[in-house]
Amino acid sequence: MTEKLQKTAITPATHTAPPAKFSHGVKKGNILQVAGQVGFGPAVPGQAPAPVGPTLREQTLQTLSNVQSVLEAGEASWEDVVMIRVYLTDTGHFAEFNEIYNEFFADLKEAPAARTTIYVGLPAGLLVEIDALAVLG
Amino acid sequence: MTEKLQKTAITPATHTAPPAKFSHGVKKGNILQVAGQVGFGPAVPGQAPAPVGPTLREQTLQTLSNVQSVLEAGEASWEDVVMIRVYLTDTGHFAEFNEIYNEFFADLKEAPAARTTIYVGLPAGLLVEIDALAVLG
Amino acid sequence: MTEKLQKTAITPATHTAPPAKFSHGVKKGNILQVAGQVGFGPAVPGQAPAPVGPTLREQTLQTLSNVQSVLEAGEASWEDVVMIRVYLTDTGHFAEFNEIYNEFFADLKEAPAARTTIYVGLPAGLLVEIDALAVLG
Repeated sequence: MTEKLQKTAITPATHTAPPAKFSHGVKKGNILQVAGQVGFGPAVPGQAPAPVGPTLREQTLQTLSNVQSVLEAGEASWEDVVMIRVYLTDTGHFAEFNEIYNEFFADLKEAPAARTTIYVGLPAGLLVEIDALAVLG
Repeated sequence: MTEKLQKTAITPATHTAPPAKFSHGVKKGNILQVAGQVGFGPAVPGQAPAPVGPTLREQTLQTLSNVQSVLEAGEASWEDVVMIRVYLTDTGHFAEFNEIYNEFFADLKEAPAARTTIYVGLPAGLLVEIDALAVLG
Repeated sequence: MTEKLQKTAITPATHTAPPAKFSHGVKKGNILQVAGQVGFGPAVPGQAPAPVGPTLREQTLQTLSNVQSVLEAGEASWEDVVMIRVYLTDTGHFAEFNEIYNEFFADLKEAPAARTTIYVGLPAGLLVEIDALAVLG
């Protein structure tokens, strides 16, 4: 009853250390929060992280894969995700993004997550960022 | 104890199908997440969704009504909402938005939700988007 | 079992009343949501809220302090926070912001929260806004 819930940082092996004192993901109780992920390729020791490619498709698939790595390292899956926030830099990317997103989630069994698509600035070279909230159990 | 929580998509009758594989709202355990809603009028078969009017007032009231439809379809109400994210396109809209918001929530009985107002881009013709997180029970 | 969860508004003594019908923070069940905080100094009766200083450092430290006041008024701490959303107005502020953030969280005992850094517009004079989600218990 009065058991203290543990908060756990989630760091997939594929990920570089975050550039500041935050976690790629964190789990407490039945809540798992994935931090904003971008299209960086798998971590290479001694190299700064860099996006996998210049296209929206390449960056989106890598970003989704990075979110998934955090979910899996936290023993969760897309089936547990209730909210996905997508940050795009250009409203003109919406249609193409949705196409890639639909392909990626074609085999989802449970109800798809809610989503908000937000048009913001991102650091140079990045076209998309995604974070996610999962409820486990 | 080890009962698997069900994730349920929420689709109000007033809503058109989302333009991609996401839900207007989703419920799992005691968490209900409403996806970003905009000022689209009630769904008309065979017609693309369109905002109800050009003014901030029309779009805001319709957007709030759309969030409410998702809450109600999930057997929740504004009284359950703990966070509202408001996306505006213009910092100059803040004062008028707050006026409309205050009128809308004048009869709220429980504590009002926390809120973040975020100034972003939105697709052409849209002035406001809102998403919401509710804790049920 | 069927006990109704209470939703409670959180208003630290240091804070001015929100400019609309929302709460600086709200708690329901084991979820505590902190509304978007900015670098306003402690409330002074009869004066409009104003940011503490023009620099990113001053505003960031005050903003973090304001989030912390809400957490503490809700009997929570940074150790309970699972997600921090940081809103900056300039991607060029990222490195300096992270430096300040790291200093601030140097003594954190539990895993640091997940984070998303979002580049948006803010009202004139404001350089940073932060909101936070905590899971208590």
